[in-house]
Amino acid sequence: MSENYKNMWESLGLDLAAHDALLDILGKGYQDIYLAQKNRPQGMGYFDFVMSEVHGLRIKELMDEKAAGRKVIGSFCVFVPEEIVLAADATLVGLCSGADFAMEEVENYLPRNTCALIKSAFGFKLGKVCPYLESADMIVGENTCDGKKKAYETLKNLVQNLYVMDLPQVKSTEGRSLLKVEYWRFKDAVEKLSGIKIDTQRLLKGIEIVNNKRKAIYRLSALRKADPAPVSGLDALLANQIFFYDNPVRFTESVNSICDELEKRIQNRKGVFPEKTPRILISGCPMAVPNWKFPWIIETSGAVIVGEESCVGERGTRNLTDSTGSTVEELMEAVIDRYFKVDCAIFTPNPDRLGHIVEMAEDYKADGVILYGLQFCQPYLMEAMPVEKALEKKNIPVLRIDTDYSMEYIGQLKTRVEAFIELIK
Amino acid sequence: MSENYKNMWESLGLDLAAHDALLDILGKGYQDIYLAQKNRPQGMGYFDFVMSEVHGLRIKELMDEKAAGRKVIGSFCVFVPEEIVLAADATLVGLCSGADFAMEEVENYLPRNTCALIKSAFGFKLGKVCPYLESADMIVGENTCDGKKKAYETLKNLVQNLYVMDLPQVKSTEGRSLLKVEYWRFKDAVEKLSGIKIDTQRLLKGIEIVNNKRKAIYRLSALRKADPAPVSGLDALLANQIFFYDNPVRFTESVNSICDELEKRIQNRKGVFPEKTPRILISGCPMAVPNWKFPWIIETSGAVIVGEESCVGERGTRNLTDSTGSTVEELMEAVIDRYFKVDCAIFTPNPDRLGHIVEMAEDYKADGVILYGLQFCQPYLMEAMPVEKALEKKNIPVLRIDTDYSMEYIGQLKTRVEAFIELIK
Repeated sequence: MSENYKNMWESLGLDLAAHDALLDILGKGYQDIYLAQKNRPQGMGYFDFVMSEVHGLRIKELMDEKAAGRKVIGSFCVFVPEEIVLAADATLVGLCSGADFAMEEVENYLPRNTCALIKSAFGFKLGKVCPYLESADMIVGENTCDGKKKAYETLKNLVQNLYVMDLPQVKSTEGRSLLKVEYWRFKDAVEKLSGIKIDTQRLLKGIEIVNNKRKAIYRLSALRKADPAPVSGLDALLANQIFFYDNPVRFTESVNSICDELEKRIQNRKGVFPEKTPRILISGCPMAVPNWKFPWIIETSGAVIVGEESCVGERGTRNLTDSTGSTVEELMEAVIDRYFKVDCAIFTPNPDRLGHIVEMAEDYKADGVILYGLQFCQPYLMEAMPVEKALEKKNIPVLRIDTDYSMEYIGQLKTRVEAFIELIK
Repeated sequence: MSENYKNMWESLGLDLAAHDALLDILGKGYQDIYLAQKNRPQGMGYFDFVMSEVHGLRIKELMDEKAAGRKVIGSFCVFVPEEIVLAADATLVGLCSGADFAMEEVENYLPRNTCALIKSAFGFKLGKVCPYLESADMIVGENTCDGKKKAYETLKNLVQNLYVMDLPQVKSTEGRSLLKVEYWRFKDAVEKLSGIKIDTQRLLKGIEIVNNKRKAIYRLSALRKADPAPVSGLDALLANQIFFYDNPVRFTESVNSICDELEKRIQNRKGVFPEKTPRILISGCPMAVPNWKFPWIIETSGAVIVGEESCVGERGTRNLTDSTGSTVEELMEAVIDRYFKVDCAIFTPNPDRLGHIVEMAEDYKADGVILYGLQFCQPYLMEAMPVEKALEKKNIPVLRIDTDYSMEYIGQLKTRVEAFIELIK
């Protein structure tokens, strides 16, 4: 794809040699991890295509939108309300992270003991290899964890257009007030950026597009309750990852179309792995493209992943936004209510998350839960310990894993995962 | 001191054998680090006595206060307003931390990669060796960093009486509103605990006692501008540490009395180290008793510490509370204003801190700044990188150190400190 898009990447200021190297690694990783899978649904062809064009055709589309006057907004977090962005005819995209890049340079800006996700986001910027970041008219940071909130202070000097959104730490009356003020402030900023005044019809349309996207991915999730599982965890994760990048209407159609196929598979008792394959629920830190290492280890070790309790997964997509309001104020309240339910570990306390993990483990008939944490991600690593104890009390087998994006220690990880799968068989 | 207080410690539920071992280590550390210093002011005798009785006589006093109906409130942070506590005739004490204790047990509750301060607080609880914690009628946690806020969720199950205070992350209108709500809620909780209604006179008295304590420690700080420095950094740190434990009125008198002595020393050009000894400002994470390792390394390597930009130091004691208000509401506003100025690294952005570091470096005629960070303390470690760059731009020599409470790697630390001192000589 390199040749077709060279001029575009050059105009975005990418480091072409580094970017080619990245695409090579990405392509090879995709080949080895995704295309090597057996019994994939045909509908995954769409997602294979999207991934093969993730820095190509999709960026071309964004550039065309920009040429037509639409704005592109980049985000690092599920707390940035896509409803508001779409209401202003703008496009929201997830920003690159999920692989180590330019780490030596990154460590001039961030302590080595920073989580891989944050270091990766800086690496993509410093290495000049993220066309999403470079094409964004606004980059939204959010005060979630200490790592991110302090990192944005530095990122502010590396990009032109960082907008920082404050977030509450407690789900109190004051916490909700803060989210309300911040979402209205964000709405104003998006209106200013786009030159479009968000009215009831526009906001309603934004809500409906995002709700439909959520309904589709939820439909996909629900189909994974079947045994044999009709789709691999890797492929379902990919759909959840592309949720953040793709055109939302097209994405919704594509997910619904794969769901039609999976329903037939289920009728025919056809799966990606044999019936009674041990079933795993993953819970914890988000897995951004191309962070496929850990699910790949699991699914090449004799188990199938049946759910992701993660921001790239049900934590991010759970809950629709109520669309019954008839004024901007009412619809904004619904947006705020919807996001205030997200059970991110930055909240204290965060009891809903344990409830959701148990509920998902039951719904998806998981034989065990793996608590996936990125090293130095304090909120999830700290929450993992009481969650582990609580799951053990409920006799749900649980394995706690701390890892990063490196390919070191894969053997050790695989050994631990295999032992866990042996245990829950 | 053991024998005299054995019954008291037993009644508090301390593990006597472990506690004896702790006191032994503490006593030996104090001997080697504090009493081994030369040219100490006579007034330090008071602080030597306080430290020798820190788990003895001071706890006896607290027990006597409790017997007389006063309440004891324990805190881990300078954001807990002592003014409000004193206004309800209660006593605020800093809770134990500053040394590794029961670490194996701690790591059943907290990830290994948690900062030493938090692990230490848990260690003192799990090891049953902190009489302050055990005698407190209320323990106040605060949502400062991710590490602490998530740790309190677990601490809640280990203690009977944890009260958690939320804090803002941004110094915005909403941030101040949150602090206001939380301080009024704290006032209500303290009133309920003590059975005392806080009126104007009471709050004013609380403000005056704390202001006087701050003025005294500020007077001590100002005297360290002299060359030769009239008091060691270790001894000044000790006064700043005892600030959190001692009876505030007696503490104020004792600090003022040592200041009288230091003024005479300055007149006579008498110091703890020779004139032109390289002068260091320490900035960063707080040093709780008995975390004296790093200042001891500095002051046995040919330099003198002339200031602490730290919560146990000027960050915690800077700024008085305006006492001109004539109603509880006005005085509460003054309390909120005062604490909202604290430039802790949990705030984003936190530009005031850099200003204060530069100001202190100039005021105390520091030859260099050491940015002291506890490993895995994300807010201070992350902020240290831009602060380091900014100080370098201003041609202020700076050394960035990440460490913990262990006595390993002391040789390496000393080598780095010596090289820095050589550089700034």
